[in-house]
Amino acid sequence: MDLKSVIRDIPDFPKKGILFKDITPLLQSPQAFTAAIDKLADYYKNSHVDLVFGAEARGFIIGGALAYRLEAGFIPARKPGKLPYLTEAATYDLEYGQDSLEVHRDAICPSQHVLIVDDVLATGGTAKAKAELVEKLGGEIVGLAFLVELSFLKGRQKLSPYPVFSLVKYQS
Amino acid sequence: MDLKSVIRDIPDFPKKGILFKDITPLLQSPQAFTAAIDKLADYYKNSHVDLVFGAEARGFIIGGALAYRLEAGFIPARKPGKLPYLTEAATYDLEYGQDSLEVHRDAICPSQHVLIVDDVLATGGTAKAKAELVEKLGGEIVGLAFLVELSFLKGRQKLSPYPVFSLVKYQS
Repeated sequence: MDLKSVIRDIPDFPKKGILFKDITPLLQSPQAFTAAIDKLADYYKNSHVDLVFGAEARGFIIGGALAYRLEAGFIPARKPGKLPYLTEAATYDLEYGQDSLEVHRDAICPSQHVLIVDDVLATGGTAKAKAELVEKLGGEIVGLAFLVELSFLKGRQKLSPYPVFSLVKYQS
Repeated sequence: MDLKSVIRDIPDFPKKGILFKDITPLLQSPQAFTAAIDKLADYYKNSHVDLVFGAEARGFIIGGALAYRLEAGFIPARKPGKLPYLTEAATYDLEYGQDSLEVHRDAICPSQHVLIVDDVLATGGTAKAKAELVEKLGGEIVGLAFLVELSFLKGRQKLSPYPVFSLVKYQS
């Protein structure tokens, strides 16, 4: 199935000049959603994945489904103050300023194998922050998986040397 | 498996006097997460579910996995301004003031069968807002499913006459 056919372009969202890739039509199609999760799972079928690590909010949709499919656990990365227990944080750059993501300190046991997942790889800032969090907690990064990669933003380079896999790439 | 054994009490979160039920230990256990999703899916195995409808953020984790398991599509309810396309909104009461949830107008086709999902049923405010959104778009509500029900807050009464199912109940 051609997943690009169920990804919608939204001009000027969230602000003027940005062409937003809207994956909600993909998610709402049972055929497309199932195909996307199965393809991601298939790529990692010979990897040992203990935990899938996704960031709020859209990363939770893909991450929850993929964790279930891989028979792994799911751990959430959240905005500051949202997680109730002891946390570790990693910061990342925004166009203006910084933001950060948090994870529970007991989310990963040392040497557990963690697959980092999100819907879209853009500049790679939040993905890199998640990789930092996994390293801080002593986990081993299996790789980073995305539904969509905006290749022209070169996020993959920022994530080197971790292996990156994406289902759908946009070159411009 | 006893799901209560992997739900953690956090006193005074998000504010003094509230005993927060933290489901992150459940999510991070492959056995518990798989068991929870399978039990929810099993309850609806003879219902026809076209779409699973979950609210950000934790509802996306359960909802994404359950949609995959039920071979349904997933549609997200989001905070105002987060969805990129045309939306419908429903408001709900907070302790002080109101908030609202939005859904894409083309998320549900008339007479599609929709299962509303969230991690926790507390006072039922956001769940009722989601039910309103399904009705506005002409969908049929199969039911509302939760991992955890805080029975003492009587959210179930607010959701009448829709059928409510929860895996774990707390009476106090």
